[in-house]
Amino acid sequence: MTQTVAFIGLGAMGYRMAAHLTKKFETVYVWNRNFEKAKKHEQSFGTKAVDLSIAVQADIIFSCLPTSHEVETIINSQQLKEGSIWVDCTSGVPESAKKLTQQLKDIGVDFLDAPVSGQTIGAENGTLTVMIGGDKFAFERALPALQTFGSLVKHVGESGAGFAVKAINNMLLAVNLWTVAEGFTTLKAHGVDLNEALECINASSGKSGVTENVFAQRVLNRSFPLTFALPLLAKDAGIAIDLAREAKLPSPVLSLAQNLIQAANLASEGENDFSSAIKLYESWSKITLN
Amino acid sequence: MTQTVAFIGLGAMGYRMAAHLTKKFETVYVWNRNFEKAKKHEQSFGTKAVDLSIAVQADIIFSCLPTSHEVETIINSQQLKEGSIWVDCTSGVPESAKKLTQQLKDIGVDFLDAPVSGQTIGAENGTLTVMIGGDKFAFERALPALQTFGSLVKHVGESGAGFAVKAINNMLLAVNLWTVAEGFTTLKAHGVDLNEALECINASSGKSGVTENVFAQRVLNRSFPLTFALPLLAKDAGIAIDLAREAKLPSPVLSLAQNLIQAANLASEGENDFSSAIKLYESWSKITLN
Amino acid sequence: MTQTVAFIGLGAMGYRMAAHLTKKFETVYVWNRNFEKAKKHEQSFGTKAVDLSIAVQADIIFSCLPTSHEVETIINSQQLKEGSIWVDCTSGVPESAKKLTQQLKDIGVDFLDAPVSGQTIGAENGTLTVMIGGDKFAFERALPALQTFGSLVKHVGESGAGFAVKAINNMLLAVNLWTVAEGFTTLKAHGVDLNEALECINASSGKSGVTENVFAQRVLNRSFPLTFALPLLAKDAGIAIDLAREAKLPSPVLSLAQNLIQAANLASEGENDFSSAIKLYESWSKITLN
Amino acid sequence: MTQTVAFIGLGAMGYRMAAHLTKKFETVYVWNRNFEKAKKHEQSFGTKAVDLSIAVQADIIFSCLPTSHEVETIINSQQLKEGSIWVDCTSGVPESAKKLTQQLKDIGVDFLDAPVSGQTIGAENGTLTVMIGGDKFAFERALPALQTFGSLVKHVGESGAGFAVKAINNMLLAVNLWTVAEGFTTLKAHGVDLNEALECINASSGKSGVTENVFAQRVLNRSFPLTFALPLLAKDAGIAIDLAREAKLPSPVLSLAQNLIQAANLASEGENDFSSAIKLYESWSKITLN
Repeated sequence: MTQTVAFIGLGAMGYRMAAHLTKKFETVYVWNRNFEKAKKHEQSFGTKAVDLSIAVQADIIFSCLPTSHEVETIINSQQLKEGSIWVDCTSGVPESAKKLTQQLKDIGVDFLDAPVSGQTIGAENGTLTVMIGGDKFAFERALPALQTFGSLVKHVGESGAGFAVKAINNMLLAVNLWTVAEGFTTLKAHGVDLNEALECINASSGKSGVTENVFAQRVLNRSFPLTFALPLLAKDAGIAIDLAREAKLPSPVLSLAQNLIQAANLASEGENDFSSAIKLYESWSKITLN
Repeated sequence: MTQTVAFIGLGAMGYRMAAHLTKKFETVYVWNRNFEKAKKHEQSFGTKAVDLSIAVQADIIFSCLPTSHEVETIINSQQLKEGSIWVDCTSGVPESAKKLTQQLKDIGVDFLDAPVSGQTIGAENGTLTVMIGGDKFAFERALPALQTFGSLVKHVGESGAGFAVKAINNMLLAVNLWTVAEGFTTLKAHGVDLNEALECINASSGKSGVTENVFAQRVLNRSFPLTFALPLLAKDAGIAIDLAREAKLPSPVLSLAQNLIQAANLASEGENDFSSAIKLYESWSKITLN
Repeated sequence: MTQTVAFIGLGAMGYRMAAHLTKKFETVYVWNRNFEKAKKHEQSFGTKAVDLSIAVQADIIFSCLPTSHEVETIINSQQLKEGSIWVDCTSGVPESAKKLTQQLKDIGVDFLDAPVSGQTIGAENGTLTVMIGGDKFAFERALPALQTFGSLVKHVGESGAGFAVKAINNMLLAVNLWTVAEGFTTLKAHGVDLNEALECINASSGKSGVTENVFAQRVLNRSFPLTFALPLLAKDAGIAIDLAREAKLPSPVLSLAQNLIQAANLASEGENDFSSAIKLYESWSKITLN
Repeated sequence: MTQTVAFIGLGAMGYRMAAHLTKKFETVYVWNRNFEKAKKHEQSFGTKAVDLSIAVQADIIFSCLPTSHEVETIINSQQLKEGSIWVDCTSGVPESAKKLTQQLKDIGVDFLDAPVSGQTIGAENGTLTVMIGGDKFAFERALPALQTFGSLVKHVGESGAGFAVKAINNMLLAVNLWTVAEGFTTLKAHGVDLNEALECINASSGKSGVTENVFAQRVLNRSFPLTFALPLLAKDAGIAIDLAREAKLPSPVLSLAQNLIQAANLASEGENDFSSAIKLYESWSKITLN
C-alpha cells in the first residue's frame, strides 16, 4: 500500500508486531526510546528507523508502550498530521483513551485503543487477538494494518472499550492464577497427584487459560519465565477495579483478587513474571506447587 | 466379560452411564429408588432391573447419587460380597470416601471414589472424565468398566482424592462463573459489546470453561437450562472449602466465592441451574447480562 | 468576637452546629439552598439569613454539604475575601480538599477540611469530634470557632487528612456493621440469645461502636431510624477505598466490605438508614436479626 | 460453703481465676499438668494441690485448657461423681460441648461451657465476663462460684452457646485488628498523624475494642506483648467459621478475615501475640504501623 505506517515502542511485543507491517506496507517507520533497537529492527526487517517527529507523520501510527502515561507524554510532545489514525496497542486506561480521542479529534486525528493478547509467541506468528475501541470508520481504515499481526481483530465498542476488555481479561487471568494456586495447594495437602489432577480439570468445567497454558508451563515446573511482568498484571487488575468503581458496581471477588495480586506485587523483589504472584500464597501455606 | 456389574442411581448422569456398561458386560444390573426408571432402562438397553439386594452382589457396583449421605445409607443397609469393588461416581465428600474405604476393607470389599465430569452430553457419548481415588490395584481391576463411559480415566491419589479433585474443579467453576459475571457487567456498564468481548477473551489468557462453554450458552441467552442444580454446586464448593479448612490452609478467594455461591443458593427460589447464581449479582447491579 | 462567621448548609448537622457559633460570635451569617430554613434559623438562634454572596464575605466560612461536589460548585460560583478561612465540615474527598486548598491559596484564602462525627445528638450538644486537615496556623485561627460545636478538635495532618480520617472511620463502621450482622446471624442460627450475647461482647474484646451504639438501638429493635443515609456511608467507604488505591495499598477486607455495602446500597429501595445495609445479608440468610 | 470445688489448668488465666474461688469455698482443689504450678498455687492461695483423680471428685470442677481436645482427653480418662457440675472455661468448640453434655448427662453430671473474656488483668481482678451455655439449673447452681472471678456472668443459651459467643467475639476481634491495620496504613501513606487519628476514631462511630485497647498498647508502640497467642486467635476464628458453615450461612467478611488471620498465623515464626498478625499486612505494604 502507498499509505505509510509507523510503530512506536519496540518492546518484546512491539518489536515483533512491527515486523509484520512490512507484509502490506512499503514504508514502515519505527521508533524506540532506546534507538539502537530501532536500528536493529531496520536491519532485520527493512523498516526505517526515524526520528519520533517523522514517525508521527505516518498515515497510521501504532504505539505499544508500558502504560497510558507514556502514550500521553509522546502524543502531547508531537505535532500530528490531520487525517491520520493513532492506534494504541498498549494495555492502557479507558479514561485516557477517551481523553486522547477527544483531544485528537479536535485536530482531525482518530485515536483507537487496540490492546493485544497472545504473548510474544502470538506477536511472532502474527496471530494476536486485537480488541478495539473507538470510531468504527477509523477501525475499518486501520483494519488491513491490524490484520498483519492479528488473527482475531474485533471492534468491541466506543473509545476505551478495547482497553476495558483487555483489563477485564487480565483481571480474570489474575483471578484464575490465584484460585488455581489455592485449589491445587489444597489438593497437594491432601496427597493428590497434581499433574493427574490438572489433566482431569483441563478436561472438565473448572478449566481455564491458567490450567491449560500457565500452571504446568510456569508454576509446576518452577520456571516462572519473565514474559509478562507482575507489576503490569497488577496495573491491569487495578484498571479493571477502577472501571467497576466508576460504574459504581460492586465487584467483591475481582476486588479481592486485585488486592492479593497487588500484595504479591509489593511483596515481590526484583523483576518477576506474573505467575510468580503465587509465591505470596506459598509463603503462607509453606507448600510448594511442584 | 463374565464379571457382573451393577449401577445404582439412574439420574440424568447414571441412566446414560449405565447404558455404556453393556458394551463390555453381559450382565448389567440396574437399580433406582423410583424403580420405573430401572424397568425402562432394562427395556431400552438390555440391562436387568433387579432388587437392590441383588444389585449389590455384582463384582463391580457403581453408584451415582446426589450426595455421600445416600451412598452411606445404601451401603449400610446391604450385605456386600467379599472381593467386589464399589465404585462411587457421586460428587462426594473425601472424608466419607475414607470412612467407607476403611469400613468395606474389613469385609474384603474395595471402595473407589470416582466422580465424573462432562455433563449429560459426556455421559451420553461415553466421553466423561473420571477422577479416581483409592487402591491402585482395585482401580486397575475397575478400569475396563470405567472406560465404557469415560474417555479420560485417571487415578489421582488415595481414597478421597477423586472427590477432592472434583470438588476443586467445581469450586473453580464457581469462581469463574461469578467473576465472569462481575467482569462482564463492568464491561456492559461501559458500553462494551459483550458478544465481541467474549470472543476476544476466549482467544486470550482470561478464558475459562465458563467463558467458552457456559456464559453464551446459559447466561447471555437467558436460558439457564437446568442440567446441574445450584444446590449441588454450592455443596461442592462447600466440600472444597472444608478440604482447605481441614488442611489449615487459607483460601481467601475460594472462600469468598463459596460464600457468594451459597448466598445465591439461599436467595434462589425453586430448582435452578448453577448458572443462575449470577442472578444474585444482577439483583445488586440492576444490569442484566444479555 | 468581632470576627464574622458564616455557616453554609443547614441540614440535620449544620442547622445545629451553626447555632453554637452564636455563643462566641456576634455576627453569624447563615445560608441554605432552601432559604426558608435559614430564615427559621435566624428566628430561632439570632443568626442572620443572608444571600450566599454576603455569607462568603465572613472571616470564617463553614460549609456542611452532602458531598465535595456541592462545596466545589459553591466555591467556584463566588468571590471570596482575601484573608478568610473556609472550613469545610462535609464528609468530603481528600483529593478535592487538596485541589481547593491550592486554588484558594492563590487568592489568599485558607481551606481546612474539617469533617465531624457524633451524629445529630453531638451536634445538638456541641460535643462533636472534629478532625482537621490543612495549614496548622489556619487551624489555630479557626479553633475557637470550631470549639463552639466540637469537644474533641484535632489537627490530624495536611490538607485532606481530615477527610481521610473521616472516611476510614466510616469504613470501619461499615465493616463492623456488616460483620456484626454475619456474627450475630450465626449465633441466632445456633439458638443463642442475642441480647445476652451482645451484653457479653460489649464487655469483651470484640466490641465496637456498632455493638455498643448501633446494633441494639437500630437493628435488633428493627427501627433503622434514618439519621445517616446508606448512600452516604457507601460514598464514604468508596472514598476510603480510593485512598488505598491511590497509595497502591492492598486492602482486602476493607474492599470486600465496601463492595458489600455498595451492593446493599444498590439493592436498597428508597431513602434508608445506613444500618439497613444488613437487610441485604438478611435476604440471603432468611434470618431476621431481632 | 461446704461444697468442694476444683480448678484444672493453671495457665495465665486459670492460675488467677482459681485463686478467687477461695473467697467463697473452704476446699479448692487445684491440678495442673506441670504439677509444680499447682504446688505454688497451694502455697500462695491456700488451695489444695491434689491428684487429678481427686480433683474431679469435687462438686464443681472448673477447667481452663488450651483447646476442647485437652478437656475431652481429661474427662475421658477420669471417673466423675454423679451430681457434680463440670464448668469448662476453655475457649472451646460448641460441637464438643454438646457431645460432652450428652456423655456426662448419662452419668448424672452437668456440663457447662463457660468461656471467659477480660485477659489476665480481668482474671487478676475477678472482673471477667463469663458467657455460659448449657442447662439453666446447673448454671444457677454454679453461679456463686462463677461470680468469684466474673463480674458479668451470663447464661446465653443451650449447650455450646457460650463457646459460640466467645468464638464470634474473637472473630470480631480478628476482623477489627486486621481492618484497623488496613485503615491506619492507608492513613499513614497519606501523611496522617496516627495518634491523633486514633483519638478521633475512638470518639467516633468507627471505634472498637481494637482501637481503644489494642492498637496503641500493642501495635503502635511495637510491643506486641504475648498475652493471647496468635494460634489461639486463629483457632477461635476457625471455630466461628465452622459455626457459619454448619448453619449453611454465608459469611463473606468473617471468612476473609479468618483466612488472612490463618495466613498470618502460618507465616508467623515462633510464639507471638495475636496482635502481631498485622505483620503479615506490613510485609505487603512495607509501611510500619508506628
